[in-house]
Order: sequence, then C-alpha cells, then structure tokens
Amino acid sequence: MDIDARRKADPDHWKLASAIRVLAMDAVEAANSGHPGMPMGMADVATVLFRNHLKFDAGAPHWFDRDRFVLSAGHGSMLIYALLHLTGYEQMTIEQIRNFRQLGHITAGHPEYGHVEGVETTTGPLGQGLAAAVGMAMAEEALRAEFGSELCDHRTWVIAGDGCLMEGISQEAIGLAGAQELGRLIVLWDNNDITIDGRVSLSDRTDQRARFEASGWRVLSCDGHDAADIERALKEAAQEDGRPVLVDCKTIIGFGAPNKSDSAKAHGSPLGKDEIAAARRAYGWDAPAFEIPDQILSDWRKIGGRGASDRKAWQDRVDALSADMRDEFVRRIDNKPNPQLQQTVCALKAQAAEGKPKVATRKASENVLEVLNPHMPENFGGSADLTGSNNTRTGDMDVFSAENRLGRYIHFGIREHGMAAAMNGIWLHGGFRPYGGTFLTFTDYARGAIRLSALMGLPVVYVMTHDSIGLGEDGPTHQPVEHLAIARATPNMLTLRPCDQVETAEAWELALSQTDRPTIMALSRQGLPALRTTHKDENLSAKGAYVLREASGGKPAVVLLATGSEVEIAVAARETLEADGTPTRVVSVPSMELFRDQTAAYREQVLPAGNVRVAIEAAVRQPWDWLLLGERGQEEKSDFVGMTGFGASAPAPDLYKEFGITAEAVVKRVRAML
Amino acid sequence: MDIDARRKADPDHWKLASAIRVLAMDAVEAANSGHPGMPMGMADVATVLFRNHLKFDAGAPHWFDRDRFVLSAGHGSMLIYALLHLTGYEQMTIEQIRNFRQLGHITAGHPEYGHVEGVETTTGPLGQGLAAAVGMAMAEEALRAEFGSELCDHRTWVIAGDGCLMEGISQEAIGLAGAQELGRLIVLWDNNDITIDGRVSLSDRTDQRARFEASGWRVLSCDGHDAADIERALKEAAQEDGRPVLVDCKTIIGFGAPNKSDSAKAHGSPLGKDEIAAARRAYGWDAPAFEIPDQILSDWRKIGGRGASDRKAWQDRVDALSADMRDEFVRRIDNKPNPQLQQTVCALKAQAAEGKPKVATRKASENVLEVLNPHMPENFGGSADLTGSNNTRTGDMDVFSAENRLGRYIHFGIREHGMAAAMNGIWLHGGFRPYGGTFLTFTDYARGAIRLSALMGLPVVYVMTHDSIGLGEDGPTHQPVEHLAIARATPNMLTLRPCDQVETAEAWELALSQTDRPTIMALSRQGLPALRTTHKDENLSAKGAYVLREASGGKPAVVLLATGSEVEIAVAARETLEADGTPTRVVSVPSMELFRDQTAAYREQVLPAGNVRVAIEAAVRQPWDWLLLGERGQEEKSDFVGMTGFGASAPAPDLYKEFGITAEAVVKRVRAML
Repeated sequence: MDIDARRKADPDHWKLASAIRVLAMDAVEAANSGHPGMPMGMADVATVLFRNHLKFDAGAPHWFDRDRFVLSAGHGSMLIYALLHLTGYEQMTIEQIRNFRQLGHITAGHPEYGHVEGVETTTGPLGQGLAAAVGMAMAEEALRAEFGSELCDHRTWVIAGDGCLMEGISQEAIGLAGAQELGRLIVLWDNNDITIDGRVSLSDRTDQRARFEASGWRVLSCDGHDAADIERALKEAAQEDGRPVLVDCKTIIGFGAPNKSDSAKAHGSPLGKDEIAAARRAYGWDAPAFEIPDQILSDWRKIGGRGASDRKAWQDRVDALSADMRDEFVRRIDNKPNPQLQQTVCALKAQAAEGKPKVATRKASENVLEVLNPHMPENFGGSADLTGSNNTRTGDMDVFSAENRLGRYIHFGIREHGMAAAMNGIWLHGGFRPYGGTFLTFTDYARGAIRLSALMGLPVVYVMTHDSIGLGEDGPTHQPVEHLAIARATPNMLTLRPCDQVETAEAWELALSQTDRPTIMALSRQGLPALRTTHKDENLSAKGAYVLREASGGKPAVVLLATGSEVEIAVAARETLEADGTPTRVVSVPSMELFRDQTAAYREQVLPAGNVRVAIEAAVRQPWDWLLLGERGQEEKSDFVGMTGFGASAPAPDLYKEFGITAEAVVKRVRAML
Repeated sequence: MDIDARRKADPDHWKLASAIRVLAMDAVEAANSGHPGMPMGMADVATVLFRNHLKFDAGAPHWFDRDRFVLSAGHGSMLIYALLHLTGYEQMTIEQIRNFRQLGHITAGHPEYGHVEGVETTTGPLGQGLAAAVGMAMAEEALRAEFGSELCDHRTWVIAGDGCLMEGISQEAIGLAGAQELGRLIVLWDNNDITIDGRVSLSDRTDQRARFEASGWRVLSCDGHDAADIERALKEAAQEDGRPVLVDCKTIIGFGAPNKSDSAKAHGSPLGKDEIAAARRAYGWDAPAFEIPDQILSDWRKIGGRGASDRKAWQDRVDALSADMRDEFVRRIDNKPNPQLQQTVCALKAQAAEGKPKVATRKASENVLEVLNPHMPENFGGSADLTGSNNTRTGDMDVFSAENRLGRYIHFGIREHGMAAAMNGIWLHGGFRPYGGTFLTFTDYARGAIRLSALMGLPVVYVMTHDSIGLGEDGPTHQPVEHLAIARATPNMLTLRPCDQVETAEAWELALSQTDRPTIMALSRQGLPALRTTHKDENLSAKGAYVLREASGGKPAVVLLATGSEVEIAVAARETLEADGTPTRVVSVPSMELFRDQTAAYREQVLPAGNVRVAIEAAVRQPWDWLLLGERGQEEKSDFVGMTGFGASAPAPDLYKEFGITAEAVVKRVRAML
C-alpha cells in the first residue's frame, strides 16, 4: 500500500499518527540533533497502542495501576514526548517540545526517569528498557498475587528496536521473561531493518521471531503502518496465555520522508527543511511547526482521558480497604521505608555484639536478611545463579515462579546484566525493594544497568560477595581489584564494605533506608572476627568512617584506615604498634561516600592531622588518595597497603602474604615512616 | 546405557577418558576447591576431539597453524590441564596438577593465557571464551584469505556450558558468528542441564538448538558419553558448509560419581573421598591419585604427537617462502610491531604542526588511521555500529564478510561486549592488530571483555569517542563521567586522552607499539584547536604528561593540568592569568599511567612544588588526587575543575558552562588560591 492509500484507509488514525511524526521531525530539526526516523516509523503502532490498549490517565501520571510503557529504543525519545504532549500530560507542554534537547528542559535527548512524568525508566543504552520491563512485569505478577487483581492488574508494553535485540542484555531479558512466563509483558519490535551503519544484515541475520520462540515467547506480527492490522495484533497480544509476547511490527524508518525513509539517513540526524516539507505533503499536513490542529489535539486529549474512570474506580477500591491494609498497600506502592527496619537491625546488633560470631560478611549478610525478610514483605531477593555463595536466600523465602507468584526469591540465572536491569524495573514498578547477588568482579557484567540504577537514583541493593583476593583459588578472573574504585567513582552510588556482623547489619540498615541511590555492598568470602562490639545502639557506619580502636592515650601517632576484611589486619597491626609504645588508632571506613558527607569537623576528629596514616584495602589505591593525602599543609606521612595489579589463584591466606597485605607489612611500613 | 555397558563398548576410549576424570577429581580433592563435575562430564567429548580431530602438536604448543581449543566453561579448568598433561605438553607436569590452584603454579583455578602453553585465552567469566573464539575464527578466515591455506588452515573448537549460553555476551557472539558465516567455528555445548542453583529450568527454558539455528548456525547433537556417536557428530561438524556449528553434547555432570552426578553437588566443590572411591570403581580405575598407568599415558602421548608431521610439513612450506614473504608472514603471526609506524606518524605530525587543523580528536584519529592503515595490513578495524561517529573506517578498508575475507573492516553490530571479546580473540589468534570503536560510556557494556584484555595483556585498541559531556544533546546516558576513572583504575590498562591532531597521532603510535597491554583511547566528539605545534619529531605523549605552554619567566606560580578537550580550556585560562601577570604553566596529561612510569625527577620537573595547581577534566576527580595532592611537605594549593555528578542533555557549550568547566571558572579558582 502506498502512502496515499494508507492515508485514505483510516483518516482519523492517519491524522493522529501524523501529529506524532511532524512533532518528531520538527523538534529534531529545531534542536539540530536527534533521531526522527524511529518515531516516524513507530507512530502508527504507538497511536493504536495509546488509543485502544494502553491503560493510563494523562491527568494522573502516577496512578499506580496504569500499564507501564517503556520506550526501550530510547533514542526515539520524541515518540514518547509527542505522545505525552498530545495526550495531555501537564508537564509536557509544547514549549518543552520546542526546546527538545536544550538545557533546563525535560525533553532530554533520551527519556530520563524522574525528569518526565510518563517516562517509566531511563532508556538510551540499548536493551536496558526491555530488560527493566522484565522486572516491572515480575513485580506486577508478585504484587497482584499478594494484593489481588482489584488493586494490581496491568500490563507492561515495550517498544524495542533492532539495537535493543542485538545487545546481549536482550537475551538475558528474553530468557528470564520466558522462564518466568510473564504473559503480561508485550514487546513491540520496531522491525525496520536499519541500524546506524546500514541494513541490519551487515552485522546480523538472526531470525528474531524464531529466537524469541526458542525462549518460550509467543510471536505475533503486523504491518506496522496499517492501523487495522496493528489493532488485530495488539488485541491478540493482550489475550494472555502465560507466554510473554513479541509483536513483530514491520515498519519503515522515517516513514513518509521521501528521500531518507528506509535508510540509515533517517536514523540519527535532522531530516532538513526540504525533506520535512516533502514529508508534510505526504502526510497531508498543513499546520506549521509545533502547531497541532485543534480537532486532532482534541482527539488526542480524549485518548489521554480514556483511563480516568478506571483510575477512579481503582481509587475507590483502594479507599474501601481497611485502614491497615490501605496503609500497607500505599506504603508498598510508594516504596516507603519499613518501620520495623531499625529495631530489627538493633536487636541483631545487640546479639552480635554479645555473641561475637566469627563469620564471613556474606554469611553475616544472610544473618541480617534472615531476621529482616520476615518483617519486610517488600524485600524481593535473588542471585545470578550464586545463591549458596551470595547467601541471598533466607529460610522464609519461597522461589518466585509462574507456579508461585508469592515466592520472593528469584533465580535470575547466569545473567548479571539482566538481573541488575530487572532490579531497576522491580523498583520502578513499585511495591518491592529488590536485592540481587553475584561476585563483586561481575559488577563488570552488570555495569550498564548498575549505572542506570545510579543515574535514576533507585535504591536497589547489589549484594556483591567474594569481594577481594580473599576469594582465593578461583583466581584473578574472579578477584575484584578495581571494582571498589569503580563503585566509588560512580556518581550517586553508595558503596558499603562492612568488616563484621555488626557493621553488616548497619550496612543493610543503610541500604534499605536509601531513597534515591543504589548500594553496592561488598562482602567477604572468608570468615572474619567480630570487631565492633560497642555502640550497638548507634549506626556508626552511617558516618562512613569512625574510630573503631582508639590509640592509647587518645592521641594517635599512627592512624590505620581499613575496610571490610582488612580491618582485621589493621587491628592486628595496631596491637604490635601499641606494644611498641606507638599510640595507634584504627579507623573503619565502611563507606567513603558517607564519610565525605560528614562535617569537616567530624572528619578532622576521626583523621586528625600530624601523624602517620596508612590505609589498608585489598584493592587498588585510586579512591584512597583523598584520605591519605588529605588537604595541604598537614604533616602526615602516608602509605597504602593494597593491590597494584591483578590477583592470583591460591588459598586466600597465601595470597594475602604474597601481595603483602598483612599486619606485619603494615607495621613495617609504619615503622619506616615514624 | 549404564556405565558398565559404556565401559565395555569401547575400552580404549574409556581408559583415555577415565584418565581425565580421575585427574580432575583428585586435583580438586587435593586443592580442596574447584570444579570436578564439568571435566568428568565432558571427558568423553574432549577425548574424541583430541584423539581424532584437534590439529595440534603437544611438542610445539605455539605452532601457528594448530586448531584453537577454547575452554569457555573455564571453571572446568582441570579438563584442559588434564589434557595438556596427558598429551605431553612439557610445562604441564604431574607436579603442576598436584598443585592445582596453589600459589606459584600454572594450574590456576581458571585457565590463564600466558601462564600455560595450550591455553589459548583466559576463561572463567562465562561466555568470554565463546566470544573470543569468534574473533579467532574471523582472524583465521582473514589470514587464510591473505596468505593462503598452505599457511593458515585451521579450526576453532570451543567447549561452552549452560552458563556461557545464558550470559548475554553469548548472543552477541552467536549473532556475529552467524552473520560472518564462520564455518570453521565449532562449539561443543556441554548440555548437562545443571547450574550452580540447580536444574537449568529454574531460570531458563531456552531451546538452545533453535536459538542457534535462528542466528544461522548448523546444529548437530550427540550422546556426550558415547565415543562413536561423538565421533560421528564431530566428523560431521568438521565438514564445513559456511555456517558455524553447535554440537549439542548431552552429558551428565560428574559422570560416574554415584551420588553426586547429574546434580549441582558435582559442580563446584570436591566430591569427597568416598564419592571419589566409588567413582573410581565405576571407571574400573585402580591406580592411586596422580598416577596414570603406563599404557594409558603412552596412548595419550601418541595422541599428543599426532600433529607433529603436519606441523613439520607446515614449517617446510613456511621455510620455502621467499625471504620477504616469510619475514612478513612471521612478523604478522608473531604480532610484531610494524616498522613503518613511527615514520608514518612523524610525517603526519609534521603536517599537522604546520597546518594546525581544528578537528575533533575522533576525526584526528581517522586522519591518523587513513595514513597508517595502508601501511599496516595487520590493522583490523571495526565499530559496534557507530562507524560514522567513531571514525574508525578508512578509505582503503573494505568490509570483512563471508563474501570478502580480504576486507579489514568489521561491522560488529550493536554488540560492544561481543566486539571487545572478538578483539581479544583476533589478537590471540595472531596476524592482526584489532581496534574497535564505540562511545566511551559504553565501555560499561564491554567491561567484562575489556578487563580480560588487561588481565591477559593484549594490546588491542579501544577507540572510545564522545568522551565527555562534550557529546552534548544525547544526554547523561551517553555522557561518560566515571569512565576515565574506571579505565585508570584497571591494572595494566593504558588510557590515552589526546588533545589535538598531533597528540592523537602520538596516541596511535603508542597504542600500536604496545606489546602487553590494551589501550583505551578517549576521543572528543567536538572540534578542538591545534595546540601542539612544537617538538613534532618527539613523542611527548609517551611521557604521559609534559609542559605544553611554559609560564612566562619559566617559573610557574600556577600549573594547570588537563587532558583531551579540556586542554583548550587550560590554555585559555593561562592567557588570562598571564595577562594578570601570573606566570602560568599548562601541562597536558595524555596518559596518567605513562606519567607515573617516569622518573621522580621528570615528574618534579613537570610539576614542581610551591605553586597553585589546578586540574581540569570533564570527568570525576578520583584519579586526579595523586597529582593534585602530591607528596607531603609540598606547599601547593590545589583544586579540580570537572564533574561531580552525571551530565545533562543540551548542546555541549551550554553544558560546559552549566557544569562550570570553563576558562573563567579555572581563573576564578586560581585567583581564590593565589
């Protein structure tokens, strides 16, 4: 069918879809940068989706029981901005669209969560939206099982492009969704056959339909420019059968642009005035840039109000709940902290300060979760196939599966990246606090999604065990060395490395109290002695660093700083130095970020000037310089005992000796400076 | 078939395979850690492969035209160590096997390239071996096309487990291999249905056979414990038809261990004495631990010598080449530096110092490659679908494909992780120096493989463009902030951030001269002025940092340090400060690693004590502290002008202003300290 025939086939649809297309073209042109081709190609599919299927109320963007719409192909941001504007999201004024990609506006190059109501997750790094959507769909299933479909009953729709599907993370998402039988997850594939470098066939010949089917998906297809055919496919997609759904939407990138459509030229740069004028003619669109004819705008606004009555009915059902249940439901969907957290942690700390257990901090973490999880129904845990190593599953946790949606433990599979993205999606959906485990080294595999946790400010918790050469025999591929530096270099990331049971309890209290940043919790494989036996009612870790062992006389000649498994070494070195008659303080540094946030007076009190200072951490030095070198004009001598290269395969005690991370080495370095 | 029947069906094979199994059980038991189940499960397949198919000569592990054997499921390291020992690799003594996973031995927990002859690549992080093998197979195709099958004619065999196939990187590898029609790549899938957490079905229901077929692979299968059936399948697999091959080997993890086989209990810990004794009985194996009966060892050694005559014939063909061709071929397969590199770079620098082009450093990089690539047939370039943005394809480069194996440009697709791993494989194969491009932010997506480049010491070159907020409108998802810190925190990584055409030429000279570490080259999107116009015959970047603009009078009151696109800002700030009468030096810092390697005297000369010091980089401060704070007892005041959080979406000049990374801001900070 040519364009004219398509226009005539369904004029109402055509006008609605054309409004998206012209806004996309014009905004990209005005910004002189951006991606017009994708919104132009998917305008028909998006129009049918928003017009007939998506459950939403433009007047109440935060309505909890809305369908989630994720634009995984985030470069096509003008598609969602146009939809939000047209359907009447208050924030998304035409002024915002006019200022696409300009400073101080919400219309960023890629859709950013928290900047724009109606954007469910930040997308742009390809595949992330798809993988986060898997988490959203899991959360929906879990919350529906828990609270019933009167309160939770919605779908997750995703638009994904060829780029999303080529990225490895997509396989992790597809596999996880298939195994979890997420029948309410519907992915609309913008099958336009174009990538930046040219035709998809330049680099891929994958039969995507067969690939999705291989992982247990249902696959449908449609002509992505035929409203009736799209409607047929979406209707079918919405008939749940327990399999996630891929709709193969055959589209033309830059649809309607006579010289650039169906080519990479329509992908990532403005079309230019002439091409835009020609496309306008093809659409039969007379209105000037950024003006939507009244009738068309009014039709779109009606679509925006379609869900209002559903929303009111839902609100009535919420209001009709018993006060207790309503409060809890609202607390949950608003992702509010759990009121029992602090006292539960305190009780455990008191016990640990008394019992002084020698445990690996990964086991200490399990101990904390064992007492917390029964009180925190919002905790949704899992591991990337290292359950027994990460100690992430507690006794009360059943496995989450299609057979048991009340299970709160997820076998994410060997999918660190998919796990991290799903955790983002779970939090974004609301109702649950996700945590997920793997080895600290494999933050590498999950970095793409971890960065988005930080960028979006999502307080998910990464339980990263085996956090140094202390993991021993598995060797350098599995031994993190630079990963604490990476975590600490990442803006808005809380990095916690507790040294024993008490600090691990404090770390969990901190992690589960966060509202706007993720936590990377670095935990040891190896057993560690109880070192924190005082101040059990206070969360000293919250200060980031504190005096764990005071120097005799209270005025240190030496200050030893350490984290996690190396605090034990600092304490042992102190013994020797004190026996020498050298007043030595040990400062435990569970979190550099939190310490940085303290007052200068507190930092000075913990790390006074005029002494020898040595930091000990079985990792690279880079993040320590600011603590070791301090501000100018001080007179300390300082040193660092840690790693300068990769690890090796051997039992952990041998490695600590081999790499010189021992109390003896610390004492030697200190003596050399005194 | 039960075990007894299998044993009787082919007693010779059985003994050979049993030797692998007992070595694996016994070594893991002795180490009290490791993974016995995988070697026990794949022993039959590996025996048939080594006995009948793999082209190798245990007496000449570095023979170039050997088949490559990659144990992607690296936790099964005892499989390859046993094979190397049994076939007679000199290094792999029984003493090494006895000391599995012990300090100072080559038998690391996971196979490490460079430690063990016969280990083609470091594996352990799952999926990496499979993805590197794709690069090896591409390199083989390319080198065969260039030098003929008399010199290059071998296959790449991979053993991959369920974990490898669940990781996202596997999809990138499978897709790339399918598109490239790598018919000599054969993946033996250890289909044992077990992961650490339990059955594969806990987290995945993917029909792997259908999934591989969907990406253009040929799929075969066999009973992984039936030597005849394995032989049939491998024979068929070796009959090349242009599609890469998956052989679905149905196996039992921990085969023969009566109580732990076919369960996660056989995966990752010692079987225990009783279970080992029972397995020995099942195998009919009487010999004590670490003793291989003479006849069996001698049979294995014969297998190890199978390829000697092929190797000699190959060597004869090499020796028969003309001296020039032989020299070049040997230079290439030994990955030796190109003798024309330096003079070509110097000529370009001379021209640039004269012409003073204002170019983005990504374009400067293209300019360098344009003159280098015609002289460097070993350069094998590509991009993860950002060719026009990364400026990685030069005029002389045809596209590498099944239709043109002489092409030297690879469309890697939207697969950063797969690209990085394939680059590792290309280098490891020999014959080519791979470089590959993406945006600097997307080092996140490739981190798993980039870390292995560093760990293995492979001088591949990551061409990372759009290296700061300077990329502008695409916004914070695409703007690296912490990625320079990450690169610099990674051991054995060379990070280069040149400021103009001359420094970019120097950066390429450095990157292409490396022998044992990878390079991350950070390049700007935005145009930058020519700043280096002197010393064109010297590679000043090789010193890591150098005085780009001297303070008037030669004694600086202020030293400004900067890299890449921020050097321009430092130079502008210097103008203002000098106009104030403040002697100001600008130090360009293209590489911190190289500067760290200089003598203390040189560092002191570039960064003398007793002045105000400000560093400028549009990234986080973490890696700068050591340069800003220096050693104790100095009297500088210092500051950092850079990023403290994520970026934003807007034109680049607006962002530099918004985040205060301007000459004015630098001047203001300096004045405040003076």
